Amino acid sequence: MIGRLNHVAIAVSDLEAATRTYRDTLGARVSAPLSLPDHGVVTVFVELPNTKIELLAPLGEESPIAKFLARNPDGGIHHLCYEVDDILAARDRLAGEGARVLGNGEPKIGAHGKPVLFLHPKDFCGTLVELEEA
Amino acid sequence: MIGRLNHVAIAVSDLEAATRTYRDTLGARVSAPLSLPDHGVVTVFVELPNTKIELLAPLGEESPIAKFLARNPDGGIHHLCYEVDDILAARDRLAGEGARVLGNGEPKIGAHGKPVLFLHPKDFCGTLVELEEA
Repeated sequence: MIGRLNHVAIAVSDLEAATRTYRDTLGARVSAPLSLPDHGVVTVFVELPNTKIELLAPLGEESPIAKFLARNPDGGIHHLCYEVDDILAARDRLAGEGARVLGNGEPKIGAHGKPVLFLHPKDFCGTLVELEEA
Repeated sequence: MIGRLNHVAIAVSDLEAATRTYRDTLGARVSAPLSLPDHGVVTVFVELPNTKIELLAPLGEESPIAKFLARNPDGGIHHLCYEVDDILAARDRLAGEGARVLGNGEPKIGAHGKPVLFLHPKDFCGTLVELEEA
């Protein structure tokens, strides 16, 4: 069912410092920062030949990554995003297997403008998993 | 400098359960388990179209992932591995940028039979980074 690893999301408190780490220290190609107020984050994409790292910093009072950063002040890997062909079929298969989909089970439009769902970390090896319709 | 994301390593206590999660629930192609006594882990590869997830379970008393699992009993993402063309040149560049290479700074032969180094999480957005010579 799952296809490509679309991205690895790393939450950081200081986006400029994280950008310098990936651009200058690790020598990767990075995008300009992009504010996504609807998602409560500012993001910088690190473009690798086969996938992306997304550096996420909080935007606004209600950022969904604020609690994670309070627990992990140095930053850390926040989630993995796998692509699926059909997000509703994926959701129904997962529900049939007893896995927990977060929220109300209806896909939302994610940061890339495509339908996404998040899955409960306790059902996926302690890892928050995002599914994105490719 | 960094090239492809070679793999995402997820540490798990129960390798059979994690394999079922990726194979049966997420519908991915997984390898047979491979014991790597020199590295203190048993590993199952999840083969995605563009990269790999490596499920790691502890092997033996001195497993390098034992402490991580004590802190994260549900499992969790342990490290990211980026490919580099020349691991000694990479190390020297990183040292010049003030980043900390773990251990004595000399590459070891990693789980794929290639030279690897690990970098300090505090210098890389709270993420343990492995570099592997491609």
